[in-house]
Amino acid sequence: MHHSISTLYDFTKGFFEKTGCSTHDASVIADVFVAAEMRGIGSHGLIRISDHYQLWKAGRLNTIPDIKIIRETLSTAVVDGDNAPGMLAASFSMETAIKKASEAGTGWVACRNSNHFGIAGYYAMMALKHDMIGICLTNANPLVAPTFSITRLLGTNPIAVAVPAGKYPPFVADFATTPIARGKLEVSVKKGEKTLTGYLQDKDGNPTDDPNILRKGGAMLPLGGDREHGSHKGYCLGATVDIFSSLLAGAGFGPFVPPSVAYLPVPEEGNGKGTGHFFGAMRIDAFREADEFRAAMDKWIETFRNAQSAPGKPAVMIPGDVEREKEELSKKQGICLIPAVIDELNKIASELDMQMTL
Amino acid sequence: MHHSISTLYDFTKGFFEKTGCSTHDASVIADVFVAAEMRGIGSHGLIRISDHYQLWKAGRLNTIPDIKIIRETLSTAVVDGDNAPGMLAASFSMETAIKKASEAGTGWVACRNSNHFGIAGYYAMMALKHDMIGICLTNANPLVAPTFSITRLLGTNPIAVAVPAGKYPPFVADFATTPIARGKLEVSVKKGEKTLTGYLQDKDGNPTDDPNILRKGGAMLPLGGDREHGSHKGYCLGATVDIFSSLLAGAGFGPFVPPSVAYLPVPEEGNGKGTGHFFGAMRIDAFREADEFRAAMDKWIETFRNAQSAPGKPAVMIPGDVEREKEELSKKQGICLIPAVIDELNKIASELDMQMTL
Repeated sequence: MHHSISTLYDFTKGFFEKTGCSTHDASVIADVFVAAEMRGIGSHGLIRISDHYQLWKAGRLNTIPDIKIIRETLSTAVVDGDNAPGMLAASFSMETAIKKASEAGTGWVACRNSNHFGIAGYYAMMALKHDMIGICLTNANPLVAPTFSITRLLGTNPIAVAVPAGKYPPFVADFATTPIARGKLEVSVKKGEKTLTGYLQDKDGNPTDDPNILRKGGAMLPLGGDREHGSHKGYCLGATVDIFSSLLAGAGFGPFVPPSVAYLPVPEEGNGKGTGHFFGAMRIDAFREADEFRAAMDKWIETFRNAQSAPGKPAVMIPGDVEREKEELSKKQGICLIPAVIDELNKIASELDMQMTL
Repeated sequence: MHHSISTLYDFTKGFFEKTGCSTHDASVIADVFVAAEMRGIGSHGLIRISDHYQLWKAGRLNTIPDIKIIRETLSTAVVDGDNAPGMLAASFSMETAIKKASEAGTGWVACRNSNHFGIAGYYAMMALKHDMIGICLTNANPLVAPTFSITRLLGTNPIAVAVPAGKYPPFVADFATTPIARGKLEVSVKKGEKTLTGYLQDKDGNPTDDPNILRKGGAMLPLGGDREHGSHKGYCLGATVDIFSSLLAGAGFGPFVPPSVAYLPVPEEGNGKGTGHFFGAMRIDAFREADEFRAAMDKWIETFRNAQSAPGKPAVMIPGDVEREKEELSKKQGICLIPAVIDELNKIASELDMQMTL
């Protein structure tokens, strides 16, 4: 069964209004949720409304937040998210980065006291319509063990970069600093399938193909997989994302990132406030005439698109291609949610007296 | 045979003076070369003097450059390196980023018309003594094929990030966006050894363990290795480094990066000037009191250092540990160059009438 985009948007907005969000704030949040669904990243879509509901019921999410800048220079700001839904703190922060960039050439914002914000690419892409490059990093619940270790210290800590082009669609990279996203493990668990090796280790650090290993003391591996194939580089990346996202603003780092689900306890105080993000906006014309840059970016895209494929392999893709194609399809066909998610959402709607069903 | 640091420094400085560099410029360059040797990255050390010599003899390196800012805003600048040795263009650019940061909170500099600059970490680390985070990216000669492709379009495009700490040494990540650095392939070739799979593909895109495959139409793989293990993420990283390093300043991108050796022809004009780099400096206190940040960074380092190792594995390392330990050892023991390199350098010294031998 397919739902229209507007149905999912209205449902999400309605849900957040019921939790106390203003109409404006609920719209901001709904837009991020629906973007994830449209772009084919269902793991960050409406399936997560339930987590937000549970966190809110447990008093662990502030739906009437006072999000504000607590420190700034010409090109930087630190934002305190006041424990808001991450989408609100992140949108405010990225807008601040864009404002800074319009005056100082670039803008860089570290945000603390936030929560899970959905897809990182959404915020990086906010820069595009301003003729800016957008950057977004976030830390996340610790699931990844650094090279040589069995201790889970880092999240899948994604990096998103959006670069405007001219006649072609923009370059939009948005990727976890692990070989695969956590969501894909859950899919394997649900299907009862093994995973490939190179994604996970067991509690003793041995390679495993058990997608359920995180529940048995195992860990995800950094991008690269093992030391011989550069996992220390994936660790460097994840660590850099963690430091920029947490320590610059005073958010919780690594193992002190609060869980994005209510069934896990909040880590002890003392090592930073909430989840942290880091945002960047760079005005193209701070470096080069925007038209000139756009033409050069078009040439870059053509060059890479025209690379010769290996026999039997698909064409070389430009980062963002897959998600954009899915987005176009979603606009035409609507979005197909998992039946169990629909049931869960309808139950929440009923509990909150939302007068809506999916 | 071990040489003292000062001997290698004096030799390098002497060489560059003989090619026309001012005493000041030759010192700047020598410092970068020697830093590479000290930090155990011999592939970027004095072995490369010969390449510089050949490029200079071929009139492809400008040792009396007019390096200048050609565009700027409060937090950004674009530098034209005037075809200088990369170390000069890069040092000037990073100093500019630091100056911008001291006024605007952060500074971001794109540099074009440069050449191979040695180790990226050197420039990132320049920020540390100013209580800033330093960032350095560069593109490089195309050896890496994007996921699915057999066309070499990207360099090993390194990322360097240096973050100051308090009582502990700084965090210094400096890594290629490929599973291994190119230099390690050369070592395997010289030893007559096969490599592991996951580093390289042959001219048809098949996995190979032949370290000589780059001379047979093969390519290096992006970090991640294959699509199933996230090579598209390594490709995204390498691509982002290329775009930031080349298109913002108008340097040559991907396949149009000029070779760092004289025996390969300069690519055709029309797609940017020279090699490109990208530099960033972020003042810590633009985000948070520096003392507070340093204490948090110390706590971060302690947490990661205290992670439990997998049985039989070494302790978890903080990025920069290996190079720093090597540096301390080099100070005590001096540096051991490959005999063939010593011979080559002595031959150059004789040709240039340097009155020095190693």
